[in-house]
Amino acid sequence: MSRFLSNRYKDLEPYVPGEQPQDQKYVKLNTNESPFPPAPKAIAKAAEAAGRLQLYPDPDCRAFSEKLAEHLSQESGISLTRENVIITNGSDEVLNFAFMAFCSSEKPAIFPDITYGFYPVFADMNGLPYREIPLDEELRIDPADYAGAGGTIFIANPNAHTGIALSRDQIEEIIRNNPDDLVVVDEAYVDFGAQSSIPLLQKYDNLLVIQTFSKSRSLAGARLGFGAASKEIIQDLNTIRNSTNPYNINGMTMAAGLGVLEEEEYTRENCQKIIANRRYTEERLSAMGFELTDSVSNFIFMKHPEVDGGRIYEEMKRRGVLIRHFTKDRMAQYNRVTIGSREQMDTFLQVLGEVIEELK
Amino acid sequence: MSRFLSNRYKDLEPYVPGEQPQDQKYVKLNTNESPFPPAPKAIAKAAEAAGRLQLYPDPDCRAFSEKLAEHLSQESGISLTRENVIITNGSDEVLNFAFMAFCSSEKPAIFPDITYGFYPVFADMNGLPYREIPLDEELRIDPADYAGAGGTIFIANPNAHTGIALSRDQIEEIIRNNPDDLVVVDEAYVDFGAQSSIPLLQKYDNLLVIQTFSKSRSLAGARLGFGAASKEIIQDLNTIRNSTNPYNINGMTMAAGLGVLEEEEYTRENCQKIIANRRYTEERLSAMGFELTDSVSNFIFMKHPEVDGGRIYEEMKRRGVLIRHFTKDRMAQYNRVTIGSREQMDTFLQVLGEVIEELK
Repeated sequence: MSRFLSNRYKDLEPYVPGEQPQDQKYVKLNTNESPFPPAPKAIAKAAEAAGRLQLYPDPDCRAFSEKLAEHLSQESGISLTRENVIITNGSDEVLNFAFMAFCSSEKPAIFPDITYGFYPVFADMNGLPYREIPLDEELRIDPADYAGAGGTIFIANPNAHTGIALSRDQIEEIIRNNPDDLVVVDEAYVDFGAQSSIPLLQKYDNLLVIQTFSKSRSLAGARLGFGAASKEIIQDLNTIRNSTNPYNINGMTMAAGLGVLEEEEYTRENCQKIIANRRYTEERLSAMGFELTDSVSNFIFMKHPEVDGGRIYEEMKRRGVLIRHFTKDRMAQYNRVTIGSREQMDTFLQVLGEVIEELK
Repeated sequence: MSRFLSNRYKDLEPYVPGEQPQDQKYVKLNTNESPFPPAPKAIAKAAEAAGRLQLYPDPDCRAFSEKLAEHLSQESGISLTRENVIITNGSDEVLNFAFMAFCSSEKPAIFPDITYGFYPVFADMNGLPYREIPLDEELRIDPADYAGAGGTIFIANPNAHTGIALSRDQIEEIIRNNPDDLVVVDEAYVDFGAQSSIPLLQKYDNLLVIQTFSKSRSLAGARLGFGAASKEIIQDLNTIRNSTNPYNINGMTMAAGLGVLEEEEYTRENCQKIIANRRYTEERLSAMGFELTDSVSNFIFMKHPEVDGGRIYEEMKRRGVLIRHFTKDRMAQYNRVTIGSREQMDTFLQVLGEVIEELK
């Protein structure tokens, strides 16, 4: 810490992303990346854009946001224009903007006690109060717990770490029961079997839906996220964006995003493969005695009744397989495992079998 | 504005980037971009990185920041490691982090009244007080005005809009005269004829130097900036970065940056061409009766004693040449013109000649 740091940030504890050790090559199942390369058109368009980098990117992301609005309109059956979307440097950026714009000392941020670990950091970072609502015994969100919650609600759907999703009707219940507060639905993992809440934008002005191109669309390395909401909410988020970093999206990433949207069939097929690999992995884990949450994401959340979660993580890493372990209270016995290719999952299952035999 | 926006941002006036009209093709001399494409290695490496985008980028930017530290050490003659640099999504991002980390109600931001127009926006955005110190009659910064200024000082060197630079000795005078306050030197335009303050990092811990790959390095479209300072200051900036967006730099941009640093000769040659084109343009403008500031940047700042600056801007735009006009007080008679290729400058000079004849 330097002698110049503002008091405001002296006790701030930053978010810790999944480890990226450089000491050896791992089977990397710890940060929910896609095992599939980006869509061929995404790669080609990004590469082509690299030759024009001497010019600033369009700060309004016109071409990409128009295409995205068109795509979302088709998928959701409601009519969205580019004024209904904001494009950001990964979905973390729009999440941070949402904390800034829509929380305050009067409007705390409200989210589950087990969810994306960045939410409390965004709150602390911006000097905002927050309240955590515990998941139930089965690590599920109960929508009734959020009725009249009295703040800006953040729901990851499917929820981070557990992979469990609320139905669109359950999300609607939360929105309806908080008519004067904004509900932010973070759909980073929605494409692996959950329902998107985007169609609800037609009926409700107190909804902001956030998605990312990092998971199902194989663009984690390009940093591309977005928010969809009413024009007014998007305007508010753009006020923040334009007051911090108006050229937040580089030209190659915009081009890659366009390419992905022109090849949606590729994304759909990859999602189907991940879902099939998840089922395949779940069956084998159950046979090994693991308890699993009902994940509809590109990861599973598993614990073994007889073997410590932290030990499993360590032994797997020692053998070259990286999974993610969280130490927070009720999560401490669990490990989160990204669903990769069939080959990766076979390696994972084989190594895990050895580890369990050894530790049991 | 939505009904959910925090009171804190209701009166915020965002920064307005240079216009990017889509109605026709312009000779674009309004946002200080390079007329030269990125270094061939930058294009090749970025294109190659596009194929690996399914994986998150390294949040620590190890490969790039090590190469950058090595490059800066060679250029400055002092020893810097990657712990002395922070890599950001354009230099606007590190500027915003610096306002956040190092200003407060007790430490206002202090900068010239005519400078980069984003500084007051960063202050307002973060609810921070600021104080503007007027440039002298000749639109120069007088270092003596900053002695014991009592806040965190931001100096663009060369200064934005005027293009005038302070010498390294003059910057040192400001640093020395504010031993308990941080001096941030924003060197976006330093490669076109000014002296960098990076060598001063060896002697002073109250210095943060900011640079960008957008101008001399032809990567405006990739969004790549950095700060260089003591390890402690970089740590503070990383606390902010890791609490907002740890994966702030995408994989293609890091790769492009590496390519630029492996081909420094290309950057140097391009800077020499810009400097030659600036002199060429200045001579012709002087002959046309224009008054110019003593710019050592990739732009000139010009006014005509008989013709209104706003009219010149409008007439040039109507004829397909975009330059930048600011309406703020003492700048209102000036226009800022990016130095492009010789061909672009010839078109600019020819059209300007016609405009002046018409308006005189």
